[in-house]
This record gives sequence, C-alpha cells and structure tokens, in this order.
Amino acid sequence: MLWSNYFIPTQKENPADAKIPSHKLMVRSGMIKQESAGIYSWLPLGIKVLKNIENIIRQEQERAGAIEILMPTLQSSDLWSESGRYDGYGEEMLRVVDRHDRILIYGPTNEEQVTEIFRKYVKSYKNLPLNLYHIQWKFRDEIRPRFGVMRGREFLMKDSYSFDLNEDTAKISYYKMFVAYLKTFQRMELKAIPVSAESGPIGGNLSHEFSVIAPTGESEIFCDKSILDLDINKKNLTTDKEISEAVENYLSFYSATDEKHDVNNFNKTVKKKDQISGRGIEIGHIFSFGDKYSKPMNASIVNADGKISDVYMGSYGIGVSRLVATIIECFNDDDGIIWPISVAPFKVNIINLKNNDDDCYSKCIEIHNLLEKLGIETIFDDRDESAGKKFSDGDLIGVPFQLIIGPRELKNGNVELKIRKTNKKEIISFERAIDKIKSIIFEE
Amino acid sequence: MLWSNYFIPTQKENPADAKIPSHKLMVRSGMIKQESAGIYSWLPLGIKVLKNIENIIRQEQERAGAIEILMPTLQSSDLWSESGRYDGYGEEMLRVVDRHDRILIYGPTNEEQVTEIFRKYVKSYKNLPLNLYHIQWKFRDEIRPRFGVMRGREFLMKDSYSFDLNEDTAKISYYKMFVAYLKTFQRMELKAIPVSAESGPIGGNLSHEFSVIAPTGESEIFCDKSILDLDINKKNLTTDKEISEAVENYLSFYSATDEKHDVNNFNKTVKKKDQISGRGIEIGHIFSFGDKYSKPMNASIVNADGKISDVYMGSYGIGVSRLVATIIECFNDDDGIIWPISVAPFKVNIINLKNNDDDCYSKCIEIHNLLEKLGIETIFDDRDESAGKKFSDGDLIGVPFQLIIGPRELKNGNVELKIRKTNKKEIISFERAIDKIKSIIFEE
Repeated sequence: MLWSNYFIPTQKENPADAKIPSHKLMVRSGMIKQESAGIYSWLPLGIKVLKNIENIIRQEQERAGAIEILMPTLQSSDLWSESGRYDGYGEEMLRVVDRHDRILIYGPTNEEQVTEIFRKYVKSYKNLPLNLYHIQWKFRDEIRPRFGVMRGREFLMKDSYSFDLNEDTAKISYYKMFVAYLKTFQRMELKAIPVSAESGPIGGNLSHEFSVIAPTGESEIFCDKSILDLDINKKNLTTDKEISEAVENYLSFYSATDEKHDVNNFNKTVKKKDQISGRGIEIGHIFSFGDKYSKPMNASIVNADGKISDVYMGSYGIGVSRLVATIIECFNDDDGIIWPISVAPFKVNIINLKNNDDDCYSKCIEIHNLLEKLGIETIFDDRDESAGKKFSDGDLIGVPFQLIIGPRELKNGNVELKIRKTNKKEIISFERAIDKIKSIIFEE
Repeated sequence: MLWSNYFIPTQKENPADAKIPSHKLMVRSGMIKQESAGIYSWLPLGIKVLKNIENIIRQEQERAGAIEILMPTLQSSDLWSESGRYDGYGEEMLRVVDRHDRILIYGPTNEEQVTEIFRKYVKSYKNLPLNLYHIQWKFRDEIRPRFGVMRGREFLMKDSYSFDLNEDTAKISYYKMFVAYLKTFQRMELKAIPVSAESGPIGGNLSHEFSVIAPTGESEIFCDKSILDLDINKKNLTTDKEISEAVENYLSFYSATDEKHDVNNFNKTVKKKDQISGRGIEIGHIFSFGDKYSKPMNASIVNADGKISDVYMGSYGIGVSRLVATIIECFNDDDGIIWPISVAPFKVNIINLKNNDDDCYSKCIEIHNLLEKLGIETIFDDRDESAGKKFSDGDLIGVPFQLIIGPRELKNGNVELKIRKTNKKEIISFERAIDKIKSIIFEE
C-alpha cells in the first residue's frame, strides 16, 4: 500500500479528554474517531487491527469446535421478559421503540437469543455438545463512557454459548473455551491471567475473568506468580482428560479478583515472593450457569433414557474492540504504538528518505512489491514529507519493521532496518534485511 | 467439516409467511431464523455464504482503490439536522433515545457520517480523490418487512463514498465504482443490468441501479438486449480513459427503471426484438450528488490555486444480505438451492451411503481430508440418516458437487459424482472425480 493512496490522519496533539495511553495513541495514529459519547468510527488502520484480532479469535474458536453464527444487534424484549432479566438489567440496556410501538433491545449480550435458537432446533442429546459463537456489535449505555474504545458504548464482542447434557460435559465445554482463550491471547503476545471471578448479571457459580496486568487496569487482581510461568502451548491437549488436567493445573494456583480476594487464604497458600497483585484489564470472561436460562425458557432435551431435562449452558465473551486498546496499553513507548506482529496493521513500513530521487523511489517500489508478493503486508511512505515526519509517524503507528531507504546507503546496496520493538537500527544489505524480516514473521 | 459436528437445522415445511423461493429455501436449508419482524439470525450455512459474498465485494472495492473503514451503527441525530435530512427521512428511520435523553439514529445510510469524517481530516486537493467504504449493519424500519432477508429491517450493506475536486474527476470515481460493481456481480454469476434510475432521498442527478431480472423482482425494468451481451472482463481497463469508454459503452444502450421509462424513446432507439422488460431485483445503487452534503455540512477543500470549494461526492451501495436471497432467486430448482461456486458455503458434499460400513467411512474421511488440504471446503454427511434424507438435504443446501460413496462402487475404486447445477451423475474413479472438481473450481 502506498501511504499517499491510503488514509492515515495522524495528529500530534492528544485529545483533551484522553486519559490513558491507548486512547491517546489510537486517536493520534488515526485509528479511531469519536462520533458520539462512547461511539467510534474505525479508520483504516483501526479496522485492519480489529480484523486481525477478530481472525485470531475466530481461528481459535473453530479449532475448539465452536460454530459461527450471527445474531442480530436488535433483539425482541419478550425474550428478556421470559428469562427474567428485562427489569433487572437497568439503564445500561438500550431500549428502542419501533414504528409499531414494539420494544426492541440493542443486545448487550445474547444468552436469551441463543437459547431461543437452541430450543427451536435442538431436541435430542445426540446433537450435544454444541457451541455456537458470533462476533457482533453490542451496546451498553454506560453512564460515563471513557478511555476510548476501552470502555465504549458500542463495542465489538465475540460471545460463545455452550450446550451440554449434564454438569460433567458442561465442565469439559468450559475447559475447552478456557484453553482456547489462553491460546488466543498468547497469539497476541498478551499474558492473560485466568482469575476466579463473580458471575454478576450473567449468573452461575463457575466463572473466570481473563485479565492482563497494566497500570491502567480498572480493578485489582491477585495471583500466584506461578500462573504467569505456565505455557498452554507446551501442553499436549488432544483428549478431554488432557484438557481437564491442563486447566486444573491453572486452577490449582491462587488467583482472584478484588471481590473474590481472600487475604488470609492468599497468604496461607502463596509464598510472599510469589504474590502478585496489580491492576487488571479484563479482556475475557467465561461463565458456566447450568439451567439459569434453559429452565425459564424451556430449552430442554431428551436424554438417552428418553427423559427430558433442561440443557446445561455456559457463555464465553471476549471484548474484541477492547483488545485493540489493551494491546496498546501493554505495548507502547513515548513515541507511539509497538504492535505485536500478529495483529499489526502492516508488518513493514518503507520510508523513503529522499522524495525526488528516482533511484530511491524505484527501490522502495521494488521492495514493497517483493514483500507484498511474499504475503507480508507493507506500507510505503511515499508522501512528500520530511524524513523527520516520516520517522515520527512511523514510530507512532507502530509497524514492527521499518526499512529506511536513502541515496547514500542505496549506492552500496544497503538499507537501514529498524525494529520498532527494540528501536535498534542496523545498516545491512537488502537481502539480509528481507531474510531477517521473513525469518521473524514466518517463524512465529 | 463433519455434518454431525456442525449445525444445519434443515426442515421440510415451508414457513407459512414465505412467499418467494429464496425466503422458503433459506429457512428450509437452515440458513436463517427469524427473530422479530424483518430481523434474522444467520445460522452457520447462512453466515458462511454472507461472508463469501462480503469478501468478493471487499476484494473488488480494494481493487478499485476504495479504502475500508467502519462507521458505527448508531449515529448522532445532529448530523442529520445539519444535512437537512432529519425531518424528511420519515418513519423508516429508527430513532433511539439514550439514558441522557440524547437522540441517536440506527443508520439507514451514512452520507452524513462520512462527510463528518472527511471534513475533520481532509483539507487539501492533494488528498483527493478519496473513496472510503464500510460493510456494516443498517436498519430501515419498513412498515411491512417481508420476503425474508430480501426486504428485512436489519440488513448488511456495503456503502462507499467518493470525494473529488470537481465534476470531471467525480465522474471518473463514479465510473470506477460502476466497473467494480459489474465485476463484483459477475463473480457471483449474476447478470447485473445497470439501469438509469431516480436518485430519491440520497439526491443528485446521476444515478444507476444494478438489477437482475427475476420473476420475484419488485419493479419493472426496461433495457436493450445488447447490454446483456457486454462482458466487463473482456475490456482492458487500466487508464481512466479506458474505464470511461467502457462505462459509456454501457450507457449508450437504453435501460431504465419504471419511473424513468420513456416508451417512445424505447421504441425509437431499440429494435422490437432487442427490447427486454422484466421484474428487476435491485442489488446495487450508485449516486453522484456533487455538493448536496458537503455544502450544508461545510466539507470544503483548498484547490491548487488556493481557492476553497465544496468537495464533490458520490455514494455507492450494495445490499450484502439481500444478495444472498437474490442469488437464490436466480439459482434454484424444485429440490433446493444451486449455489454458484464462488459463494457456496461448501464446495463439496460427501455422502456416505452406508453408515456402519468401516471402509466407506474411512474413504469418506480420506477424501474429505484430501479436499480440505487442497483448499476445497468440504462437508462430509456422516449423520446416522437414510441415504434418501442425505440426498434431499444435499440438494436442498445446494453445495455444487456431491460425492456419493457406497460399498458397491467403492470395491471398484469408484465414486458417484453429482453436479448440482445440472443434476447429472456419473460413476468415475476417485482420481478423476477429484481432478474434475479441481479443474472446475480452480479454473474459475
């Protein structure tokens, strides 16, 4: 992509209302634009990152056996009356009255809607287990939306819903999502900590948050350092037994949200030097809630003995748009964003030091086309701007590799390669630079 | 994908309210489920087709130089007051009042919102031309939603917006989208006819609908048969001049909607034998409307002479969810859907004739894995159902190729290949069957 053909409205000034790094940097790098309180447009760089994150989530959901559907943004309020949540959900639920005076709800979550789908089609234990997920915009009418897309009103969420015959298989479904979440976040280079949590308005008695520690986190979390040393990718996870053991290994270590924290127990079970506490940003939340929705909504199944029972359910959410901000909270410096390769909007940024030099321009185009052909998304900063502006914008938008091409080095067949993560620069031949980029990207 | 691990709730009965083939078949094949009047959930087969269509549209938009963004579903009503459309849009516009008593609108279209983005960031002719598009859910509160997703209330739309310095370059932008639309629809095997149209509430004086002729079309269209014989892919379309000439060739033939139709002119310019009229389904609509939004909303730019002028705009819509239904209207028979390969949810459906035969099962799995490895999406109907049920469901869901595997033919190393488009069957070796499928799919 040529920068001059693209649309990246960077700006130097921080927005007046932005308090956290991700909000500042997303506005400054031209990723988002606020349209109303807590409602944003995603500009080209923003939507690219959002889609990269969405695709990682989708791949890991499919790998875990979840099946994609898409429920609408607007739901009938009748479903919420059936489940008993209509009155309880409060003012965060956006109610809409249509031209025929029917009440619709802009879905903040989809337990009712998916239970309605299930009960219409699935009647037999033979069709279980089943896990349906979708990635759809949601709305929560937060009283004080803030921190950009970290706490917006219209937000993108992946939510999965599992259906099982009994508590034991429901637990396996829960564990499978537990593993999928660890793998998903690891692919984004996030160290997500599963934390025992309250289940709140979703319900049930088994619930975990997945949080990353960052200074701007919204609440305190506490855990045993050992959890951070576990690596889900080092486990062999073929059978249900292996999955259960892996998850129960995680669960054997202390971890809790503020609400669930028990100081005595923490001190008793975790050595002082292994006690970790910090601000956590919640990026996922999973729930097992049995028949909380299936019972009032009559979502029952016939089991192998011909008996009828309410289906066991769980729900599993990931804040997709919030993840964009979270990754930036974890990976930034004074100059801008530092994207992990897997989610970066482009992998390579080619900077032309001398705008009117034909040789430089041709070389930039040649390298750009070569990288694109290799499947490495590349942006070439061909703007008629100073080198300084290109450097600062390059650091700001945080593309992992910068290839700086100027007449002096070009004469010797060399290029300057800057790795944004370390900010280290080296002058090497084009061949070595491309080999290095390839080896880092494709080894991942 | 194994059918037994997937979720395709087929049904024999037509829904009581369904009047047109696509509505009946989408419900019967388990693609969609109605949630409220004109509001649908997309079940696994449905979302797969929707995404395939979305991707073709996205590729052709990018190829034409349009840049993807994503505007939110809910817009501030203030923007619509600025443009003067707030009062005029009528009851089809869904208005929402949030907890702070601010009025939001569930966007039926995005001219105002994108003009607001443009005016905030773009000030100079140097950044033109610019074309921004997004693919987002829209809402129109139709008084009588009907025909399934053909005329739903919550619907998915691709809308692009072009920005130009003057009328001449605006025309080139319009022509580029004109060509992109022809290519997009052709990839879905639809014969889309560009028809001179009224611009209605969007405004402007240059407007074309893209329609396909089908008995269930909503309005009458009239055109010269010669338009149907044109093939956009046979044109060389590198320069602006070549693009203009190609489009003007299309425009040189008579074509009009009901509202624009002029019988005398039709009879004068088109030979009787070349006169085509029929019911048209509108799948795209493009508009060039100059300063209709930029003037009231102050979206101006500085030109090369330092003078300020209002930017010239156009907008270009494709009904993504409506296309799913339209393709079915064009491609179906008494037994079900006949998907064009490019949009089919799976390309091959493997039918196991004998459920408890180990050899048959192993062969099915082997062929399934082989096809998936070749990048050919395959579903293996491994259900414990009769052959008859598998045949009728296979025809209903309309996957292009069926591979029917049974013990008798397997002994001879053969398989029955059925091509859904022609319903022709032949017994051939596995190698030949796979070669045939490969050659048809990858030649496309």
